[in-house]
Amino acid sequence: MADVVQGRSPRTGDPVGDPLPASTPADLDRAVAAARAAAPAWGALTGPERADVLDAIADALDAARAELVAVADAETALGEARLTGEVGRTSGQLRMFAGLLRDGAHVDAVLSPADPAIGRPDVRRMLHPIGVVAVFSASNFPFAFSVAGGDTASAWAAGCPVVVKAHEAHPATSAAVARVVRTALLGAGVSEDVLGLVAGRAAGGPLVAHPGIAAVGFTGSLAGGRALYDLATRRPDPIPFFGELGSVNPVVVLPGAADERADEIARGYVGSLTLGTGQFCTNPGLLFVPEHAKLLDGITEHARAATGGAMLSERIRDTYAHETAGRADREIARGTAADDAWAVAPVVWHATLAEFTANAAELTGETFGPAGLVVTYTDEDALVDALAAVPGSLTGSVHATEADHPLAARVAATLRPRVGRLVHNGWPTGVAVCWAMHHGGPWPATTAPAHTSVGGTALRRWLVPTAYQDWPDALLPAELRDANPLGVPRVVQP
Amino acid sequence: MADVVQGRSPRTGDPVGDPLPASTPADLDRAVAAARAAAPAWGALTGPERADVLDAIADALDAARAELVAVADAETALGEARLTGEVGRTSGQLRMFAGLLRDGAHVDAVLSPADPAIGRPDVRRMLHPIGVVAVFSASNFPFAFSVAGGDTASAWAAGCPVVVKAHEAHPATSAAVARVVRTALLGAGVSEDVLGLVAGRAAGGPLVAHPGIAAVGFTGSLAGGRALYDLATRRPDPIPFFGELGSVNPVVVLPGAADERADEIARGYVGSLTLGTGQFCTNPGLLFVPEHAKLLDGITEHARAATGGAMLSERIRDTYAHETAGRADREIARGTAADDAWAVAPVVWHATLAEFTANAAELTGETFGPAGLVVTYTDEDALVDALAAVPGSLTGSVHATEADHPLAARVAATLRPRVGRLVHNGWPTGVAVCWAMHHGGPWPATTAPAHTSVGGTALRRWLVPTAYQDWPDALLPAELRDANPLGVPRVVQP
Repeated sequence: MADVVQGRSPRTGDPVGDPLPASTPADLDRAVAAARAAAPAWGALTGPERADVLDAIADALDAARAELVAVADAETALGEARLTGEVGRTSGQLRMFAGLLRDGAHVDAVLSPADPAIGRPDVRRMLHPIGVVAVFSASNFPFAFSVAGGDTASAWAAGCPVVVKAHEAHPATSAAVARVVRTALLGAGVSEDVLGLVAGRAAGGPLVAHPGIAAVGFTGSLAGGRALYDLATRRPDPIPFFGELGSVNPVVVLPGAADERADEIARGYVGSLTLGTGQFCTNPGLLFVPEHAKLLDGITEHARAATGGAMLSERIRDTYAHETAGRADREIARGTAADDAWAVAPVVWHATLAEFTANAAELTGETFGPAGLVVTYTDEDALVDALAAVPGSLTGSVHATEADHPLAARVAATLRPRVGRLVHNGWPTGVAVCWAMHHGGPWPATTAPAHTSVGGTALRRWLVPTAYQDWPDALLPAELRDANPLGVPRVVQP
Repeated sequence: MADVVQGRSPRTGDPVGDPLPASTPADLDRAVAAARAAAPAWGALTGPERADVLDAIADALDAARAELVAVADAETALGEARLTGEVGRTSGQLRMFAGLLRDGAHVDAVLSPADPAIGRPDVRRMLHPIGVVAVFSASNFPFAFSVAGGDTASAWAAGCPVVVKAHEAHPATSAAVARVVRTALLGAGVSEDVLGLVAGRAAGGPLVAHPGIAAVGFTGSLAGGRALYDLATRRPDPIPFFGELGSVNPVVVLPGAADERADEIARGYVGSLTLGTGQFCTNPGLLFVPEHAKLLDGITEHARAATGGAMLSERIRDTYAHETAGRADREIARGTAADDAWAVAPVVWHATLAEFTANAAELTGETFGPAGLVVTYTDEDALVDALAAVPGSLTGSVHATEADHPLAARVAATLRPRVGRLVHNGWPTGVAVCWAMHHGGPWPATTAPAHTSVGGTALRRWLVPTAYQDWPDALLPAELRDANPLGVPRVVQP
C-alpha cells in the first residue's frame, strides 16, 4: 500500500475509488520535463488565444460535472449540492481569468518613450510567465483549490504549465479532473502537458526542490506549508513560494449590533462556524462579543442544536478531536456529531478578554473544524488593545450599527494591518470570486502578504517583468509594439 | 576601533571624515521602535500629501549638494562630476515617486460592485504600506542606492518608514544625508523618524531578524545578500526580502553588427566595462562576439589603453586582485592602474565558446570591477545553446543589424527568461530612472524576480492589499469611497 494513494470514504472509513500510483522520482522528473517542454508554446499564445483554451477547459469540467461530483462525494462526503456548486465555481474561475486575458491588462504594459533631451532611451515593460509552477492542492476544496482550482487556473492564465500534487484525501477526484483537463487541452490544440499530476506525500518535497520548478502555490496547514516554504527558500536558487496556511479570522461584534441583532448574529455565527463542518480557511475561529446575555445564550443554544458532519480525512478528524479535548475546560457549548465515521461535534469555547490577553499565544492557535473561541469584553479600549494580539489572518469582520462607527473605525485600524479582507456585517466564510477579491494576509495566513490566491490579481504571482530598451519594433512582443495590435491597455509615461 | 565605522580615502587608504558609532542592540531597538511609532501618521497621509514631503526632501538634497558631494568624494573617490550627477539622480527619483503618488495609480484600486443576482457582495481593494522597511545601502552608489536612494524613496512613497543600515565604505556621507533628510522631514511637518540610520556590520543580521521590521531591501554582494535572505526567510514569521545581488550582464554581438561597427563596439564595450572602475551591478561581465579579427584587436587595444581608478574599499580591491590573478591564464589585455591607493588595472579575458560551455559554472561567476570575459563563437546554433548557461542577470544586450534580426530573435528568446532588461545596440551600464524601467531578474540577480529596485513599479515591493467587503462608505479609505475624492484611477469590474 505504500506505493499507491487510496481514497477513503469519510462516511464509512472504507477505501473508495481507484487508487492513484504514488509518483516515483522518475515520475516526477518526467512530469516536470514534460511541463517544461510545453512551456514555450503555452507562454507564446496571446492572451485571447489562451483565454479560449481556459474556456474550453471550463466547458469540459461543466460537461463532466455529474461524473466528477459523484467521484468527489465518495471521497469527501461534502454532498452533491456543495460539490455541484464547487464545480461551477471552478469553471467560473477559469472563465474569469479568460475574461481578464482578453482585456490584456494582466501584462501590465508600461511605456517610457525616449527623451533625447535627458538622454533617456525608449523603455517598454511587460510581464511574462515565470516558468513551470508546482501547485499543492487542498483537502477542503476538491475542485476549487485542487487540480484545476484557483492556483492552477491563475498560473495557466499567466502562461505557465502546472504540475499539481494531488491531495491524499481525494486521489480519484484528482485523476478524474486531470483526465478531463488533459483531454480538453488536446482538443483545444495545445499540449496536454500544460497540466501534470503527481501523487503521494513523498513527492511533495522533491517537487518543490526540483530545478525545473520556478514557483510554488500551496493551500494547506501551517506546519506543512512552512516545511515546503523552507525547502523553496533553501534551494541553491530560491524560488517564490505562495502558501495560504492558517487563519483564525477574528470577528468583532460591537455593542450596538449586539443590542440590535443578538439572535441574527448568534445564528449567523454558528452557521458560519459549522458550514462545511468548519473546514474552511475562512472559518471564524475567534469571536469578540460584549458581555451580552441574549447574544451569549443565543450562541450556546444554536451551537448545541448544530450537527457536525464528516471531516475530510481521518487525520483531520483525529487532530480536531485532540485539540478540542485539550480545551475542554473552556467549553460552553457542544453540538452533536452525525453518524458518519469521521463526523465530529461542533464546539464553542469561552474566555474573558483578560484571559485571552494573558494567554494569547495559546488561544489564537487555529483549530481546523467547527470549533471557535468566544471572547467577551466589557471595556472598549481593552478590546482594541487585545486585537493587536490577533495573528495574521485572511479576514477580519466587524458587526456594527451606525452608532458603533467610531469604535468600528478603531477596531478596523487595528485589524487592517493584520488581515487581508475586512468584512462589515457579514461572516468570513464565502470568498467571492471577483476582480477585487483579496484572499491573503500577513504570516501565518500566507507566506507572501502582497499576493492573493483568489480574485483577478491572483495571476500576478506567476508573472515577471522584462524591460525592453531601444528594442526594434519588429522584435518586440505584440503587446509592446507601436501599433498595439492586441489592443492591450498600456500606461505611457508623460 | 571596533565600536565605530570609519571611512577611508580610496586615494590614500587613510581615515577620512567623521566616524559613525557602530549601533548597539539598544540603538537598533530604538531606531526600529521610533520608525514604528512614526508609521501610522506617515502611512495615513494621502498620496499627494506624501508627494509634497518627497519633494521637500529632494529640494533639501539638491540644496546641500556641494557639501554632500565633498563628503562623498573623500570617502569614495568617485569624483565631483559623477557624484554631482548622482545627487541629481537621487532627488530625481524622489520627484518621480512624488509624481506617481499624485497620480494615485500606486494604490491599485479595484472595485467589484455588488451583484445580488449571484449573491456577490461589494468588494473594493487597494494597497496599503507593509510596515517598517529595512534598507541595506550599497557601496557603489553613495547617494542613489544608499540612505535616501531608490529603495528608501520607494518605501517612503509606499508610506513606510525606513531604517537604513549605512554602508561601511561611506559612513560620513550616510550621516550627512540622514541629517539633511531628517531636517527636511521635520520642516515638512512629519516625524523625523520616517528615516532611521544604523551602522556597523554587526547590526545587519539583527536588523533583518528584528520583529519590528516588515520587509527588507538590499543591494550588494551575492554572499552577503544570501546570508541576509536566509535570516529573513528563517524568521519565525518570514518577511519579504528584496535583494539585488550579482549579475554578469551578457552582451551578444551578432556577425552583421561586428562587420558594420567593429571599432564602435570595441570602444563601447571597454567604455562600459571600465565606467566607474567597473563598479556597477550592470557591468558587462560576459561578451559574446564572432571570431572577428578587427573587433578582437579593437577590444584588446582599447583595454590596454584604459586606466582603472580607485575601488570603493580595500576589501573590494583585494577581492578584485585575487579574482583577476586566478584567471591570469585567460588574460588577453590589461590596462593600467591609476596612482590611487586602491586603484586597479582593467582586465579582459578570453575563452572560445567550447571552453565557455565546458566551464560555464566557473566562467559565469561575477568579478566586481573592470574585468570581463570575451567568448568567441563561430557557430550560431552553438551560440544560442551556450546562452542557456548564463545565470540570472539584470540585463542582456544584443548588438545587431537588421540582417541579424532572425538570429537576434533566437538570442533574445534564450536570454529573455534569464534577464530583467533586454538592451538593443547599447550597453547595460546606465539604468534610466523611468516608469517602465525594470532593474531586476531571476536568481542570482535578485531574490524576487517579480520586482525591481529602479523605476515606477519599485514601490510595489512595500505595499500589501486589503479587500473591503460591504464596508460602509464613511469608513472606507478615501481612495475607495463612492465619491473618489482624491480622483485616483480605479478599475471597476463590469
